[in-house]
Amino acid sequence: MNRYSFLDDYSEGAHPDILKALSETNMVQQTAYGDDAYSQEARTLIRQHMGDVDPDVWFVASGTLANILTISSALRSHEAVIAPASGHIVVRETGAIEATGHKIITVPPVDGKLTPDSISAALKANAHFPHMAKPRLVYLSNATEIGTLYTKKELEAISTLCKERGLLLLLDGARLGAALSAEKNDLTLKDIAELADIFWIGGTKVGALLGEAIVIPNPELREEFRFHIKQRGALLAKGRVLGLQFKELFRAGLYFDLARHANGMAQRLSSKISNAGYRFAAETETNQLFPILPNVLIGKLKDHFDFYIWEPHDESSSVIRLVTSWATQETQVDAFAAKVEEFVT
Amino acid sequence: MNRYSFLDDYSEGAHPDILKALSETNMVQQTAYGDDAYSQEARTLIRQHMGDVDPDVWFVASGTLANILTISSALRSHEAVIAPASGHIVVRETGAIEATGHKIITVPPVDGKLTPDSISAALKANAHFPHMAKPRLVYLSNATEIGTLYTKKELEAISTLCKERGLLLLLDGARLGAALSAEKNDLTLKDIAELADIFWIGGTKVGALLGEAIVIPNPELREEFRFHIKQRGALLAKGRVLGLQFKELFRAGLYFDLARHANGMAQRLSSKISNAGYRFAAETETNQLFPILPNVLIGKLKDHFDFYIWEPHDESSSVIRLVTSWATQETQVDAFAAKVEEFVT
Amino acid sequence: MNRYSFLDDYSEGAHPDILKALSETNMVQQTAYGDDAYSQEARTLIRQHMGDVDPDVWFVASGTLANILTISSALRSHEAVIAPASGHIVVRETGAIEATGHKIITVPPVDGKLTPDSISAALKANAHFPHMAKPRLVYLSNATEIGTLYTKKELEAISTLCKERGLLLLLDGARLGAALSAEKNDLTLKDIAELADIFWIGGTKVGALLGEAIVIPNPELREEFRFHIKQRGALLAKGRVLGLQFKELFRAGLYFDLARHANGMAQRLSSKISNAGYRFAAETETNQLFPILPNVLIGKLKDHFDFYIWEPHDESSSVIRLVTSWATQETQVDAFAAKVEEFVT
Amino acid sequence: MNRYSFLDDYSEGAHPDILKALSETNMVQQTAYGDDAYSQEARTLIRQHMGDVDPDVWFVASGTLANILTISSALRSHEAVIAPASGHIVVRETGAIEATGHKIITVPPVDGKLTPDSISAALKANAHFPHMAKPRLVYLSNATEIGTLYTKKELEAISTLCKERGLLLLLDGARLGAALSAEKNDLTLKDIAELADIFWIGGTKVGALLGEAIVIPNPELREEFRFHIKQRGALLAKGRVLGLQFKELFRAGLYFDLARHANGMAQRLSSKISNAGYRFAAETETNQLFPILPNVLIGKLKDHFDFYIWEPHDESSSVIRLVTSWATQETQVDAFAAKVEEFVT
Repeated sequence: MNRYSFLDDYSEGAHPDILKALSETNMVQQTAYGDDAYSQEARTLIRQHMGDVDPDVWFVASGTLANILTISSALRSHEAVIAPASGHIVVRETGAIEATGHKIITVPPVDGKLTPDSISAALKANAHFPHMAKPRLVYLSNATEIGTLYTKKELEAISTLCKERGLLLLLDGARLGAALSAEKNDLTLKDIAELADIFWIGGTKVGALLGEAIVIPNPELREEFRFHIKQRGALLAKGRVLGLQFKELFRAGLYFDLARHANGMAQRLSSKISNAGYRFAAETETNQLFPILPNVLIGKLKDHFDFYIWEPHDESSSVIRLVTSWATQETQVDAFAAKVEEFVT
Repeated sequence: MNRYSFLDDYSEGAHPDILKALSETNMVQQTAYGDDAYSQEARTLIRQHMGDVDPDVWFVASGTLANILTISSALRSHEAVIAPASGHIVVRETGAIEATGHKIITVPPVDGKLTPDSISAALKANAHFPHMAKPRLVYLSNATEIGTLYTKKELEAISTLCKERGLLLLLDGARLGAALSAEKNDLTLKDIAELADIFWIGGTKVGALLGEAIVIPNPELREEFRFHIKQRGALLAKGRVLGLQFKELFRAGLYFDLARHANGMAQRLSSKISNAGYRFAAETETNQLFPILPNVLIGKLKDHFDFYIWEPHDESSSVIRLVTSWATQETQVDAFAAKVEEFVT
Repeated sequence: MNRYSFLDDYSEGAHPDILKALSETNMVQQTAYGDDAYSQEARTLIRQHMGDVDPDVWFVASGTLANILTISSALRSHEAVIAPASGHIVVRETGAIEATGHKIITVPPVDGKLTPDSISAALKANAHFPHMAKPRLVYLSNATEIGTLYTKKELEAISTLCKERGLLLLLDGARLGAALSAEKNDLTLKDIAELADIFWIGGTKVGALLGEAIVIPNPELREEFRFHIKQRGALLAKGRVLGLQFKELFRAGLYFDLARHANGMAQRLSSKISNAGYRFAAETETNQLFPILPNVLIGKLKDHFDFYIWEPHDESSSVIRLVTSWATQETQVDAFAAKVEEFVT
Repeated sequence: MNRYSFLDDYSEGAHPDILKALSETNMVQQTAYGDDAYSQEARTLIRQHMGDVDPDVWFVASGTLANILTISSALRSHEAVIAPASGHIVVRETGAIEATGHKIITVPPVDGKLTPDSISAALKANAHFPHMAKPRLVYLSNATEIGTLYTKKELEAISTLCKERGLLLLLDGARLGAALSAEKNDLTLKDIAELADIFWIGGTKVGALLGEAIVIPNPELREEFRFHIKQRGALLAKGRVLGLQFKELFRAGLYFDLARHANGMAQRLSSKISNAGYRFAAETETNQLFPILPNVLIGKLKDHFDFYIWEPHDESSSVIRLVTSWATQETQVDAFAAKVEEFVT
């Protein structure tokens, strides 16, 4: 690849500190299947962010595995999930949830998000007992699939509704780092541990080789979770590989630093494009940008950079998606911006 | 129940000819599991409607079983169904299809129906390989869940699209009798056997005690279908009970006669309500009526009749659903109409 | 069929009293989906046999559906079933239980039965957490698949072990009537309701057209069971057809009378074959006989009767299976015996 | 851990060459989801071992995922697996295969292996159509779960039977390296690609951080396999992590060198224990040893080493399991042997 990629936040390997830790511990014998010392230390470090909640923590290799596990272990066969129609489990996981036997009830997203109203409407529309699957779990992502954020107030309102209506709340945190490190964010890991029944903290997109940490505040969902990890193929013999990376991410704040870098690069790029006179299809809240650019400019940018053309905007312009990451180089951000500015002048 | 019921088309038992046949053959020993003489005769009678297609025919106890079987036997685990959001498998089967592992992609219905455009849009929106389940089967109902009909032209257009795009076509015929016996209908069983890959003919709602006949024109879907019947619990030891009823329904046209009676009662009731000055939320094409009546009138009707209040129309009126059947008495239709007319005058 | 069949206990239709009840109530309008008056009355009649237990009762169309429902509603995805290797769910249901996602751990049967020892051995062999599915439910049939019986003492010992080890106990009662009406039996429906967590009472093999009654003594398994009935395709629109038959079976003891007739015919046939000098591969405890007959005699019997050749015994003789039923004619039993006696003399 | 571990072959990280390759390529941007350059190179390297077969090759994170994927993608819901009762999918994967809906038919292992006779017996015992699931895929492991090997002749005989009887053959190669590098081995990767329909090459146990390579010789099983990888959560965003490791393992024979080291250490340890006068419960053919030792000696060894006590042998001795690996140190092998020798003298 000669063109610099803004396609996604997983085009590089891992942050060098993670590789270093892998090398340094490589020949130490450890117990298998997640009972190694590094996984234990990572659990302790993650729990320190969660006050009195003291959740169970497990590490798995991919986000889809994390969603399969958290949902299929929490539900009985007649129970269904409520999710925004834009949710990752709805449009990017090849029917993984349905393959475990569960219906997903979709609702129209509002800025990529669920709201108490949309959840209530789904409950009302799915109440014809026993002819409809029973809504039992609410799925949302933070940051969302279009890079937007839940405020503390928004998440509290949803959590309250869930408790009132007997619903479990699952938060998909594939890009939780980006969310928690965003300028507008007012949520903490502790808040989330208090508001959600189960959630997961993405490692892959924040600078790990691979790995997501499943966190289970709700004690009823903890029991026997390891059976599910094994049954779905997610129990790695060398679980140390996952644990060690999370230890490194949470040892001294690397997790937040890397997310902040990604967001900062996004803000820098966003400002420059904005200053050049272009508008955006969605506000740049985390590490995803959706500028609306002339097709002619897009063509020129494509000579030097990789990115997705998201959707046509009008006859002569389109929305593109740019993603920054822990590894994004400021010089490349500036090079991209320079091409935009050059086009304008 | 003292009030006469227009709630549905399955409030009575079976047409007396069916009970008579059950009694007359009761003590004749027959081979079990659908290999009895009556099932064979019923198959032959049904196949006579289908020209050269010569499909396999199997009998099962319920419509949900018919949908589970036809879909789960036709698909591999990564394959999905396209269905209208109003489809029975979407809103009235408790996630039965998802429980077999398959995603349902829903599209907005047009008069309760799918169109080539809505199917094409679903294909386009689900093409991000391999991150989305593969659309493979199109599900539609005739008559639809709101009593509307597919014309021959409409079904041909969908069938052509399916063949072009490698999609299987399944027709849910829970109320196929009502559809084929409707005034506006121009489809025959032979047409459907040529246009659909697999479909089923409802017995329960047309006057059987229970039973639906699954018809499989597509030879690729026939092989090993019996394994699925058994695996899903649908293989009755006394399969004769299902076969004999379909033999009786198709022996001398009873199937069509009963459906015609139901439609006739619906037309009679519809005309009278219309003549009394009321409009309908949907055209009365088969045996379901959706008149819009004043809430005060609805209250009075409820003293004498059972029916569903479908949805509010405005502050003072609502849509109700009335269903007629093979067993509906003309005197009760007229009594209902009389209450309406009495209210107007 | 010109040959009289001893193949099974479901070669005829239903007991005439059941058909009569269907005819008499045929045109009475009833609420759908099992909320009809006849189902309610049948529930009450069945509960009267169960003292203070007061279980939930539901009716479904087939034994395989009953097993699918009782097992899949009781288990979470990581939980497994312990069953004898000869169990119906193991060898005659086409992988129906596995199709709902659950492993079956098989143990060698002792006279067709489970024992506390065989269950304990299975627990011990499946304890490697979390690498093995968790044993959670014990499945047994009474009468067993080879016609043997559990004594009260045997079932109590298994039930006690289940309670101690956190296992649910499911009793498949496809031929429970034959068991409870056997000479050697010392169990009652009340005993079973106290010892099992969930069980079902077979109707098909005792003289119904179709239908099995699922009984749920354990309150934890009752909740939301109807969702599962609907999801697996087992909720019949005309649930009255099932309810009415069980009402008739339990109204005045018909259920037990018919089972007693079947057992009596088996004893009569067994005695005559025994008196003619032939031995049996298993004791005749209910309505299944396994005599060992010379192959030459078997050939002659096949000219007049239908039955299964179960397995070769030695070079010149085989075990055959004969099944009697509620409908078995004494004249045919005597005719069969006469052929045997004729051969001997 | 102060005691040196012979518990398994996954107690250390990865071979240093693999870590080095990860570091060197770390910041190179690559396409996601397995379309990176390293995965392509690894595929090419693996295919070079397989002559004209030219299979598809995919990389996943764990052996259980590999088994889930290869089996669930190959089968329809009514199809079953034949496996030895000692197979990994039977006793160490928490019902993972059943969780995808498929029954496993177990047969008694012979030296941990399947034979044409045991497969034929399973076919015969599962032929009662349609009441039994259809045997469709044969699962075996090489090396087996007890470290034994299939000879070329044995595997050919099974493959021939499979082709004759319409069965697919899957080879679980979690320890395929140990098998192919064993002294007694006469199989090659090319042989296996010609004899099996689908198989996988274990990376985790041979010195990768994680990763197994699924190889698909049978063209009918290739199509749409990626849908399954994604649906089961096995498609890693940074697929490069898996591809690069297999590139390194197959670039210059490291895969075979590491396996040879493990086997060599096993032979060294086995010889010494044997020379000290002890027998074995199974022949040491690969990297697993099953010596029978006095319980007193076992107690002393436990002070210095970790290993599994496999099963009691008699009152005073037990079978233990020792596993060597790519990382096993010769000094530790000799230290272990010294303790044994010291006990004898």
